[in-house]
Amino acid sequence: MQLTKHTDFAFRILIYLASTDEKLIRIQQLADGFDISKSHVMKIVNKLVHQGWITSVRGKNGGICLGKAPQDVRLNDVVEFMEQTLEPVNCQEPVCVLTSACKLKGVLLKAQDEYLAHLAQFTLADLVDKKMIDVVRFIE
Amino acid sequence: MQLTKHTDFAFRILIYLASTDEKLIRIQQLADGFDISKSHVMKIVNKLVHQGWITSVRGKNGGICLGKAPQDVRLNDVVEFMEQTLEPVNCQEPVCVLTSACKLKGVLLKAQDEYLAHLAQFTLADLVDKKMIDVVRFIE
Repeated sequence: MQLTKHTDFAFRILIYLASTDEKLIRIQQLADGFDISKSHVMKIVNKLVHQGWITSVRGKNGGICLGKAPQDVRLNDVVEFMEQTLEPVNCQEPVCVLTSACKLKGVLLKAQDEYLAHLAQFTLADLVDKKMIDVVRFIE
Repeated sequence: MQLTKHTDFAFRILIYLASTDEKLIRIQQLADGFDISKSHVMKIVNKLVHQGWITSVRGKNGGICLGKAPQDVRLNDVVEFMEQTLEPVNCQEPVCVLTSACKLKGVLLKAQDEYLAHLAQFTLADLVDKKMIDVVRFIE
């Protein structure tokens, strides 16, 4: 039930952007800083731009920055948007013969609702404090 | 955040054993019924035997059956025991440079607690009803 790398990296990038003093960050900076391939960073950033959480500025001195205030990015929304699936189990691979009578998925979905409801109480702003700002400054 | 196949298959096997009329079920029956390789079923059954949730009877007419009453097998315990990790994110691969100041993992762990607390309200017995018993009879 671990979050996928996709969601994990989205959080790393968003936390970084919410903590930096720099106006625009280059994809290469993120790739180097997090030791993630540039193409992987691009893929995640594109999704976050599409959602409006990141703004991209083109050109020689371009880069990316947060597209919303950190307090407007709810943690449950990031998980729901970035996870490849919110199906708690995959009953189709291999097709489970018990599916037609199974109550497990319903119970797991309710448990997942509790998980997401907890995250809905927090925003990106709750993850950024002086300590995090200092860490990001140190990396830069 | 989907459960691993390992946990999923453990649930399939436990629900089956809790619903069948037969006294002992052979590994081959489970492998055939669920279209999972025999070695994979064996691996999962061995873990469940180790935990006391399944009892194994050796010999020509041997097989496996539930080792505990269905109402004594809590769903959260199955998830906690079968999942490879309960780390909500893997901050070590690649090592995240933000880790020393990061509050995300703490928030995710609390959300996971909510998830598991919901599951703790249910046991294997809650997943077995007449409909499930009929489905298992039909497979057999």
